[in-house]
Amino acid sequence: MCNAGGGQLGRMLAQSAALLTIPISILDVGHSPAKQVVHPAPSPSASSSQAQPQAAAATTAQGHIDGPFTSPAHILALARQCDVLTVEIEHVDVSALEAAQRETGVAVHPAPSTIRIIQDKYAQKLHLIAHGVPVAESAAVERTVQAVEGVCAAFGTPLMLKSRTLAYDGRGNFVLRSAGQAQEALTALGDRPLYAERWAAFTQEIAVMVVRSLSGEVVSYPAVQTVHKDSVCHLVFAPLRSADPKVGERARRVAEDAVRTFEGAGVFGVEMFLMPDGEILVNEIAPRPHNSGHYTIEACNTSQYTNHLLAILGLPLGSPALKVPSAAMLNILGLSSSFSEIRQLVDAALGVEGATVHLYGKAESRKGRKMGHITVVGQSDAEVRARLRPLLAALPPDRQNDAYAPPAQQPGFSSPHPLVGIIMGSDSDLPTMLPAARILDHFALPYELTIVSAHRTAERMAAYARGAASRGLRVVIAGAGGAAHLPGMVAAMTPLPVVGVPVRGSALDGVDSMWSIVQMPRGVPVATVAINNSTNAALLAIRIIGAGMPSLLQKMEKYMRDMEVEVMGKVAKLEEVGWEKYEVKKH
Amino acid sequence: MCNAGGGQLGRMLAQSAALLTIPISILDVGHSPAKQVVHPAPSPSASSSQAQPQAAAATTAQGHIDGPFTSPAHILALARQCDVLTVEIEHVDVSALEAAQRETGVAVHPAPSTIRIIQDKYAQKLHLIAHGVPVAESAAVERTVQAVEGVCAAFGTPLMLKSRTLAYDGRGNFVLRSAGQAQEALTALGDRPLYAERWAAFTQEIAVMVVRSLSGEVVSYPAVQTVHKDSVCHLVFAPLRSADPKVGERARRVAEDAVRTFEGAGVFGVEMFLMPDGEILVNEIAPRPHNSGHYTIEACNTSQYTNHLLAILGLPLGSPALKVPSAAMLNILGLSSSFSEIRQLVDAALGVEGATVHLYGKAESRKGRKMGHITVVGQSDAEVRARLRPLLAALPPDRQNDAYAPPAQQPGFSSPHPLVGIIMGSDSDLPTMLPAARILDHFALPYELTIVSAHRTAERMAAYARGAASRGLRVVIAGAGGAAHLPGMVAAMTPLPVVGVPVRGSALDGVDSMWSIVQMPRGVPVATVAINNSTNAALLAIRIIGAGMPSLLQKMEKYMRDMEVEVMGKVAKLEEVGWEKYEVKKH
Repeated sequence: MCNAGGGQLGRMLAQSAALLTIPISILDVGHSPAKQVVHPAPSPSASSSQAQPQAAAATTAQGHIDGPFTSPAHILALARQCDVLTVEIEHVDVSALEAAQRETGVAVHPAPSTIRIIQDKYAQKLHLIAHGVPVAESAAVERTVQAVEGVCAAFGTPLMLKSRTLAYDGRGNFVLRSAGQAQEALTALGDRPLYAERWAAFTQEIAVMVVRSLSGEVVSYPAVQTVHKDSVCHLVFAPLRSADPKVGERARRVAEDAVRTFEGAGVFGVEMFLMPDGEILVNEIAPRPHNSGHYTIEACNTSQYTNHLLAILGLPLGSPALKVPSAAMLNILGLSSSFSEIRQLVDAALGVEGATVHLYGKAESRKGRKMGHITVVGQSDAEVRARLRPLLAALPPDRQNDAYAPPAQQPGFSSPHPLVGIIMGSDSDLPTMLPAARILDHFALPYELTIVSAHRTAERMAAYARGAASRGLRVVIAGAGGAAHLPGMVAAMTPLPVVGVPVRGSALDGVDSMWSIVQMPRGVPVATVAINNSTNAALLAIRIIGAGMPSLLQKMEKYMRDMEVEVMGKVAKLEEVGWEKYEVKKH
Repeated sequence: MCNAGGGQLGRMLAQSAALLTIPISILDVGHSPAKQVVHPAPSPSASSSQAQPQAAAATTAQGHIDGPFTSPAHILALARQCDVLTVEIEHVDVSALEAAQRETGVAVHPAPSTIRIIQDKYAQKLHLIAHGVPVAESAAVERTVQAVEGVCAAFGTPLMLKSRTLAYDGRGNFVLRSAGQAQEALTALGDRPLYAERWAAFTQEIAVMVVRSLSGEVVSYPAVQTVHKDSVCHLVFAPLRSADPKVGERARRVAEDAVRTFEGAGVFGVEMFLMPDGEILVNEIAPRPHNSGHYTIEACNTSQYTNHLLAILGLPLGSPALKVPSAAMLNILGLSSSFSEIRQLVDAALGVEGATVHLYGKAESRKGRKMGHITVVGQSDAEVRARLRPLLAALPPDRQNDAYAPPAQQPGFSSPHPLVGIIMGSDSDLPTMLPAARILDHFALPYELTIVSAHRTAERMAAYARGAASRGLRVVIAGAGGAAHLPGMVAAMTPLPVVGVPVRGSALDGVDSMWSIVQMPRGVPVATVAINNSTNAALLAIRIIGAGMPSLLQKMEKYMRDMEVEVMGKVAKLEEVGWEKYEVKKH
């Protein structure tokens, strides 16, 4: 197999190919990142491994080629020595690919026709529109001040003016705040063909990696949140969390549908905007492994690179499912020509549990260059964010942002990444529910605490219950008195375990609440604890989350041992002072 | 950094080094597995990456060296071009390492003194005994029939006769069934010095990878179960499961203590026997990455290879914690000189969710040679075993073994890898508890069902509760009638969530059981469901496990939608036939 382009994507592709001993040749200038991890055998005959999987057995890639991946002659030379040719960058000479394909019979993935459409961003937009894929309204714009002013009038400002070609990582984009910037924009964007996009005032950026097999079968990775800074990918969080339980699935459907409209096999990165009304617009598609999919190496059953290989070699696609509960990816960007800031960040990462550093072996650093990335995995969003904190702190101040790795939960306020939701029907239940909060504080398990009334805020309750799982909650503790419908009604609208705390009212000593909470009909369970015993509700929540998080279970074991020690202390006290003088402390 | 030995361990070490762009040179004959994934820069000056972490910044490894790793001259040449030298095999010339260290000042890890002790298996045993590490009784044996017969008389038979040197993967081991085999054993073991080990009739083989830092700090990976076939590692299961809740921790302590007795940094593989009385004996120690630690690449926060690099470069050690709930490793052994059986196994693995194939790039296959391995990860032991099944099925019949990947749970019988334990105080509770089993069958969630009585089998109850978590259970459903102590008492002896089902007795309609189960004191919660409603107990168990297993939560969502559809069907029926003719089906 051969790859045109020897940067970090080619490097990670080659690292995946090594696992299956798929021979690979790289075309690029010099000892580029990808070439460093593929050492072709000295004699050509020895380079074809016999142990590779059946479908790829005929592959016979040889040494690397030193030359630009834009050169038709070098592309042809590369094609001559392999059976399958792929690219790690869409800014290639498509005609050269087609010529090489004709001349050598090499398979090229993604299909040159796909690359041709995608490398012209406006052609890509028109293609998507023609196939019914939702995108921001776009129009081709001539390179004149009048034309730019015209589109400002038509679309309003702000407005995104973009180069149609050779644009990536924010290069070739200009944000027009007003029509008066028309000349400035034209100057900044140089001599490339342009188009304009109506401003998408998104609430969040989403990305989905989609793999397309030779036969057109399509599978997608989980939707992730992407965070850009200066138009370059800064952070990725997987999986996407949202109070809208369907947004992740919707994003995957949109991305899969978009990729189905293209030809050829391989992995595609689909970047999308989530709009305030919940609509999803496709922003851009990359016909190759993508920065927003780096996290898959450590976090998914099959990495985007392995799946790209499987796809283009006609092998069965691998499972894209997450194998860890939560993951984040932080790009390591050059800040200057010096490597010292990069070293600082890497040194910080080496001290972070669950962090994996990927350096790309680029010989030179420069401001904004992608030099590596760090993947962080953890057992919860809160854990991943906490692990991310020292990494963001090692960045220059303008790249830090507490919003993405907020400090630990503050006493009396909800965590932004809770695992447990404590809700109660009325503020009068607060004293009864506070002990639950104290227990979760003790275990340092992130939670939120709020008022949700089944009878007085029925809509809020429904929205809370429906969005609980997709926001990342794992348990809901619901306290309610009297008729006490809250726990059961929440349980009816979430698949999560709901722990019900019967709150003692004035008339029936909480027995009414108890029966109302515990006697649920078949089909919808509520885990009921003793009357007013929110302590036990929280301890149950910890056991529930601990069932899938062994480290938490160990903390629970310690808690139980401590309880035993406490009682043993009372045993000793009783023996020491005798029961006549023993003072019973009120719980 | 340099590595003597270019086999699969060196290859995986080099693959980890690439992530941190740590320059690495390999000494071995020819284009060995490790050399294939490290392509040194054409000019020496360009080979030192500037982006590597601080402590390793001075490293300046250059090209590979072609020669035997047993050759002093080649070892010296290797040492000359690097700052840190490590080995992937303990059968090296220790004096040559020491000479190279003296002459060049290169750091060698593991310490030559450690390699010297470990490469002589009897010296290793004596060293461990001297440091109080538990091992099987051993004795040096002269190479005479009389001496062998003498040790048979002393230790009894069967007995393990071993070469002291150059023994691994079962080579150099002879199992003496009787003293009559003395001559046969001497012939088989050739001309090496020998020693004998008293037969260890272990119940299980355990391994722990231990990492030792430059300063002597020691961290250990989770204990795993290893399965050998013909004395070669066949399967590894992580983490170790046991009804003894402390055995995993005990194994780690024994392994850590053993590694503390050696000098130098790096990762050590400690193989142990678990004896019937719970004692743990150290069998052998390898001063390097080990086959039993391959699983760490996909399953742990930090792989054994990365941790070996971090240790020998003086960088902070990485977290050894599992990042997935369960993992297994299957070695790919050559079966003949043909690659076709290997291809078959790899093809099978490519269709298995959560499986990652590692091929080593060895040019030739032969019977018993380690050609690669497959790691399988999953959300539970049952899932991992199910995924392993098609892989074991692709092996020749004599390497298949249903015990390690048993077929799916049979109706009416407990799963060997349950996530839920259904227990009841009396067989008279069975009709009440059966609906729970039906629900778990419906969700295909593995469970066990048995009788555990708090009052009549108190010891059994305590053992059951104490071993529940370490056996891999995540939820216990306990049904009990009358005084109904079972759920609460189990909850007092396990950190797992316990779901209590009050069983209706003859006198008080189950209200007695309900109060007894739900009114637990502060500190020990029981998740109580409605009287006799074991259906809801199982649904709650699914929600609890689903809290940490998103795919299960999706099944629960579907179940809830199906319930809704069922009721909507009744709505339609009621409208269609009218309520005068509507027949109410008994639940």
